[in-house]
Amino acid sequence: MNRHDVTERIVAERIARKLSWAEVAKHVGKSKEWTTAACLGQMTLDAQQAAVVAKLFGLTEAESAWLMVTPAKGSLSSPVPTDPLIYRFYELVSVYGTTFKELIHEEFGDGIMSAIDFRMELKREPDPNGDRVNIVMSGKFLPYKTY
Amino acid sequence: MNRHDVTERIVAERIARKLSWAEVAKHVGKSKEWTTAACLGQMTLDAQQAAVVAKLFGLTEAESAWLMVTPAKGSLSSPVPTDPLIYRFYELVSVYGTTFKELIHEEFGDGIMSAIDFRMELKREPDPNGDRVNIVMSGKFLPYKTY
Amino acid sequence: MNRHDVTERIVAERIARKLSWAEVAKHVGKSKEWTTAACLGQMTLDAQQAAVVAKLFGLTEAESAWLMVTPAKGSLSSPVPTDPLIYRFYELVSVYGTTFKELIHEEFGDGIMSAIDFRMELKREPDPNGDRVNIVMSGKFLPYKTY
Amino acid sequence: MNRHDVTERIVAERIARKLSWAEVAKHVGKSKEWTTAACLGQMTLDAQQAAVVAKLFGLTEAESAWLMVTPAKGSLSSPVPTDPLIYRFYELVSVYGTTFKELIHEEFGDGIMSAIDFRMELKREPDPNGDRVNIVMSGKFLPYKTY
Amino acid sequence: MNRHDVTERIVAERIARKLSWAEVAKHVGKSKEWTTAACLGQMTLDAQQAAVVAKLFGLTEAESAWLMVTPAKGSLSSPVPTDPLIYRFYELVSVYGTTFKELIHEEFGDGIMSAIDFRMELKREPDPNGDRVNIVMSGKFLPYKTY
Amino acid sequence: MNRHDVTERIVAERIARKLSWAEVAKHVGKSKEWTTAACLGQMTLDAQQAAVVAKLFGLTEAESAWLMVTPAKGSLSSPVPTDPLIYRFYELVSVYGTTFKELIHEEFGDGIMSAIDFRMELKREPDPNGDRVNIVMSGKFLPYKTY
Amino acid sequence: MNRHDVTERIVAERIARKLSWAEVAKHVGKSKEWTTAACLGQMTLDAQQAAVVAKLFGLTEAESAWLMVTPAKGSLSSPVPTDPLIYRFYELVSVYGTTFKELIHEEFGDGIMSAIDFRMELKREPDPNGDRVNIVMSGKFLPYKTY
Amino acid sequence: MNRHDVTERIVAERIARKLSWAEVAKHVGKSKEWTTAACLGQMTLDAQQAAVVAKLFGLTEAESAWLMVTPAKGSLSSPVPTDPLIYRFYELVSVYGTTFKELIHEEFGDGIMSAIDFRMELKREPDPNGDRVNIVMSGKFLPYKTY
Amino acid sequence: MNRHDVTERIVAERIARKLSWAEVAKHVGKSKEWTTAACLGQMTLDAQQAAVVAKLFGLTEAESAWLMVTPAKGSLSSPVPTDPLIYRFYELVSVYGTTFKELIHEEFGDGIMSAIDFRMELKREPDPNGDRVNIVMSGKFLPYKTY
Amino acid sequence: MNRHDVTERIVAERIARKLSWAEVAKHVGKSKEWTTAACLGQMTLDAQQAAVVAKLFGLTEAESAWLMVTPAKGSLSSPVPTDPLIYRFYELVSVYGTTFKELIHEEFGDGIMSAIDFRMELKREPDPNGDRVNIVMSGKFLPYKTY
Repeated sequence: MNRHDVTERIVAERIARKLSWAEVAKHVGKSKEWTTAACLGQMTLDAQQAAVVAKLFGLTEAESAWLMVTPAKGSLSSPVPTDPLIYRFYELVSVYGTTFKELIHEEFGDGIMSAIDFRMELKREPDPNGDRVNIVMSGKFLPYKTY
Repeated sequence: MNRHDVTERIVAERIARKLSWAEVAKHVGKSKEWTTAACLGQMTLDAQQAAVVAKLFGLTEAESAWLMVTPAKGSLSSPVPTDPLIYRFYELVSVYGTTFKELIHEEFGDGIMSAIDFRMELKREPDPNGDRVNIVMSGKFLPYKTY
Repeated sequence: MNRHDVTERIVAERIARKLSWAEVAKHVGKSKEWTTAACLGQMTLDAQQAAVVAKLFGLTEAESAWLMVTPAKGSLSSPVPTDPLIYRFYELVSVYGTTFKELIHEEFGDGIMSAIDFRMELKREPDPNGDRVNIVMSGKFLPYKTY
Repeated sequence: MNRHDVTERIVAERIARKLSWAEVAKHVGKSKEWTTAACLGQMTLDAQQAAVVAKLFGLTEAESAWLMVTPAKGSLSSPVPTDPLIYRFYELVSVYGTTFKELIHEEFGDGIMSAIDFRMELKREPDPNGDRVNIVMSGKFLPYKTY
Repeated sequence: MNRHDVTERIVAERIARKLSWAEVAKHVGKSKEWTTAACLGQMTLDAQQAAVVAKLFGLTEAESAWLMVTPAKGSLSSPVPTDPLIYRFYELVSVYGTTFKELIHEEFGDGIMSAIDFRMELKREPDPNGDRVNIVMSGKFLPYKTY
Repeated sequence: MNRHDVTERIVAERIARKLSWAEVAKHVGKSKEWTTAACLGQMTLDAQQAAVVAKLFGLTEAESAWLMVTPAKGSLSSPVPTDPLIYRFYELVSVYGTTFKELIHEEFGDGIMSAIDFRMELKREPDPNGDRVNIVMSGKFLPYKTY
Repeated sequence: MNRHDVTERIVAERIARKLSWAEVAKHVGKSKEWTTAACLGQMTLDAQQAAVVAKLFGLTEAESAWLMVTPAKGSLSSPVPTDPLIYRFYELVSVYGTTFKELIHEEFGDGIMSAIDFRMELKREPDPNGDRVNIVMSGKFLPYKTY
Repeated sequence: MNRHDVTERIVAERIARKLSWAEVAKHVGKSKEWTTAACLGQMTLDAQQAAVVAKLFGLTEAESAWLMVTPAKGSLSSPVPTDPLIYRFYELVSVYGTTFKELIHEEFGDGIMSAIDFRMELKREPDPNGDRVNIVMSGKFLPYKTY
Repeated sequence: MNRHDVTERIVAERIARKLSWAEVAKHVGKSKEWTTAACLGQMTLDAQQAAVVAKLFGLTEAESAWLMVTPAKGSLSSPVPTDPLIYRFYELVSVYGTTFKELIHEEFGDGIMSAIDFRMELKREPDPNGDRVNIVMSGKFLPYKTY
Repeated sequence: MNRHDVTERIVAERIARKLSWAEVAKHVGKSKEWTTAACLGQMTLDAQQAAVVAKLFGLTEAESAWLMVTPAKGSLSSPVPTDPLIYRFYELVSVYGTTFKELIHEEFGDGIMSAIDFRMELKREPDPNGDRVNIVMSGKFLPYKTY
């Protein structure tokens, strides 16, 4: 058994138990964004969070222990994602990659937006022409330093 | 000469002329996000926008004509980007890809967030622990339809 | 168990039960194109459709539940398909890719043909020199917007 | 000089001379689909067609000679296309690849749709919810033969 | 169970039953070239052929049914084959690829040699300096057509 | 200047001088298959052959010298060829690769068909249903030896 | 002209002018590690540093301006480096990658070692059995945060 | 069973038995860096070390035997690592690769830093702005020799 | 069961039975180089050799039969090997590849060193500065022939 | 100008001046193996060697200076070499890679054969059945050390 197996269990149990990610997040006491990423094997849970998740999905103790182990992260099965929804995000990096780079450097100088000290929120944005997906990302700016 | 050559010209001229993207955008009359992407060869300019950009960067008429041609898009030179700043965005897709998928499907059902009917805004988010990069993305939800 | 396993079950059961895709589609009440894609794990079924499919192929309740979960899409096992029939479609994209791009931009301006708001029909086109495969594709044009 | 250089010349001249592909096709006397593919270096022109194209774009005799040479075909610069418009076609092959395969085999038996004995037509399909791109493809069915 | 499993069964049974491909072909009533390809999962058998093969290798009815399903073709496990014998054929395509192209176009004009309407024969060519492998390939020429 | 440049010169000169490969081969005194491969940079010419080729295509002495240098071989620009004609040969290796392997081992035992001690002939095979491309390959069998 | 061209100029000038990187660093007033990386196009110089470097290598004003532009980083020309010296570092990541991961997580919890807030020093470590390369790396630990 | 299976067993047992790598190393009597790499299948243990590890993790005799077999090394599952922590090390090779090369050649001449005659130490470096990961690497310099 | 499974059995049994490859070779009556390659699934054994190997490793009759089947060769799991020992050989091909080519062509003319009619011997070369691995390779030169 | 350009110059000059590598080596005073590798941009020459080479090939002083700069090594243009002669060496690594590994570990324990402290000799081995290429490689064994 490894973390990947536990993720597969959670995915299957969530469907069988008809739980929404929002409900899971409410039990865990964290945002639905972080909670979903954690349940999908991208974040590390503490003992209390793991206990909640284990109870919600009926995990064994051994499975629950894996939730507290720092996982090997990365949820794509190929360098270029094949699922249309995930591909659109990849396309945004492809089309807007140099734009992100220019504008962040213009505003902050040389450095990066952290993908670690990072949070995001995803919500519905009502629109008469069809509702929109609205995502707010916030990552700490980390400057390159001379030495 | 092709669009790529024109992009390289703009990149070099902007440095020589010490213009910021924000200034360019003000002249063009569009957001700095769209303007930067357009100048970097990812969007199509109309005649008036092209005239403004050509004047700002001292482009020839032939170069200016290319700005109005729909470009072959995609600004990455390899499937996995090597520049650290751009890679962080790729990493976000890698780590959060399945989370995006789950949460969008939970909220909207089967479909995608459009990367075409899309806009974004990038700004500085002041923070006592170090300022943050704040990006708001908004893309129309497009549902899969049965037929 | 995951969606992929359910797809493999359906594929095997269809052969054993000697059902044509056209017959399956008639039971589901949708086109044979959409129905086949859905049964092959590329589309999401609603409760009623899933019940019909489950009955036709003798699926368990757990298997049937997977049909209603939005699948991770993409049916190719490598970036360049190896099956000769599927490769021919890839070759069409390779040979006609820039032609599609030029003609759509000439007719509609900058934007894309949606692969989401999309439908297609595949039928036999009788021809004295040998019958032909006739495919009609229809996808909504989505324009890039300035902002 | 090679065919690729001639293609680049044509692409640049068409923009400078403000010719539409439909106009080019009318002069050549073939469909806009075939003519565009031919001008983009994917098809071979005969002497008369080459003369028309050479005159339209102001090509030299040496450049014109290349139009009559069978080209090395394939217009994508990477196995997975990066331009969003062309990628959507690749995505269709990815999502519907096995569906194409199943339905063609169901209708015709083992074999392929020819990408050589092939024609297509691309037109605007008016729609109150937004016009659509309509593509009709027709390729001869080629059966595998036993021997 | 899928076609690949059936192929693996046939491969193992042939060794255990000490059958040569030539013998299998004689029972099937087709050439050894077609028969081998069919048994290795690259061609579709009809009911009678499948019955013969099933009897020769002791296949179950379910396994036999798979022989009549059009297979997903392509027998290489990587884009560049690693087995020295198969690699030599790949090398021939690499070294002689442009020669094939030039000579076929010189003789026939623009088009291809069909890999579908195709047959081949492989035999021993006695030679005092060491016997040779002799392969005769015959594929229908398919011309590109204007439209 | 390198061999590749000389190949490009020959390709361009052949078109300008309207020479067929068959004519070139007659002057060189070798088969059209070997001669074409040699002119396309895959074989080494001796002094006399190089002189003939240089005269036919108007090569300089320095260019002619390159013809006598053993070239870096391999005429494909990517692992999987994109040109439809050349791809069909790759597809034959993909579909028939394991068949080649089985039948050669059945006839000769463990070893390979040499791609070095190799010759081939390509000709038109008249056929009332459409002429065919006929290719005869002959390569020495090389057995693996124990030691 | 782009940053890559400037890097090539510096590399060639350093050889012609017989300057060591240590000398360059002394003039710039930073460590030899940072200075070398900066001159090789991986870091951004400020106006004063750029002036020093421009004078040392005889750069034009336009070239010097590029030194102050944040570069597109990444100095490897392929995903797996081919130069033996650089490959050894890649091999260390390959062999010790999971060890780095385990030990950093054991000491710090979930998070990463920053490659941005990072410094390193490379020096000779005398050893009677043959001198050794000694590298000290120091990168800030960045913890993943819940939200 | 192979070495990879034994590594997976150790990984799982360590979590279940709540052992730190530092504790394991103390029992083995080697550094935590070497011990972790060895337990993760990258180094070969001698009989005594294997006995200690087997006892700590409750391995069978057959499993223990594998620890003494030289393993097939390399702990990354793809050429470019996807886990963020391990990727940062890859990024360091990408950004600093040519810097490593220049500085080692400047100090030692042509040659490499050995990745075999190599040791490293990883520790916490306290810092008021946030603690840092400190890694000291020491590898023997191996010069290229003429002959 | 396939040849790969038999190879895995042999690998595991050799460790359990504490047999050296030199001992296995002595029983088989061939060199340790050929014998090891054969046991690792790269060569074909005759009936007598297979019987010896089967007895040494306790193989079943079915497993033994696989040893006499010509295997699908190639022992690397990725195009660029990751194991440091095997990588060094790949690096030799990378660094010395063009040198091999120049010197063989200088000595023999156009052609190759056969990797089929090939033998090698690997032994310890005592050296006061540390013993060396000494490998002698001998492969028949195969000339390209005109035709 | 860079080292690669100098290598191209040497390659072209050697052909024009009709120098053999053996002659070049005699002038340099080193083996033909090392000398060829050095001239092809894989080794570093000292001042005296560079002067000899520069005189032999008529290099400028600037070109000659590059010979003394440690080159970026690796002479293959793709991960899997396409030239048949070089590919055979790659195939040997593929087929015999695990054999090299087993036999070196059996003789020496865990470690590698150095590709740096390495020399080789390539010569003709007369044989009545056709002369053979004989290559002797000698590389220092480097053991992995515990710490």
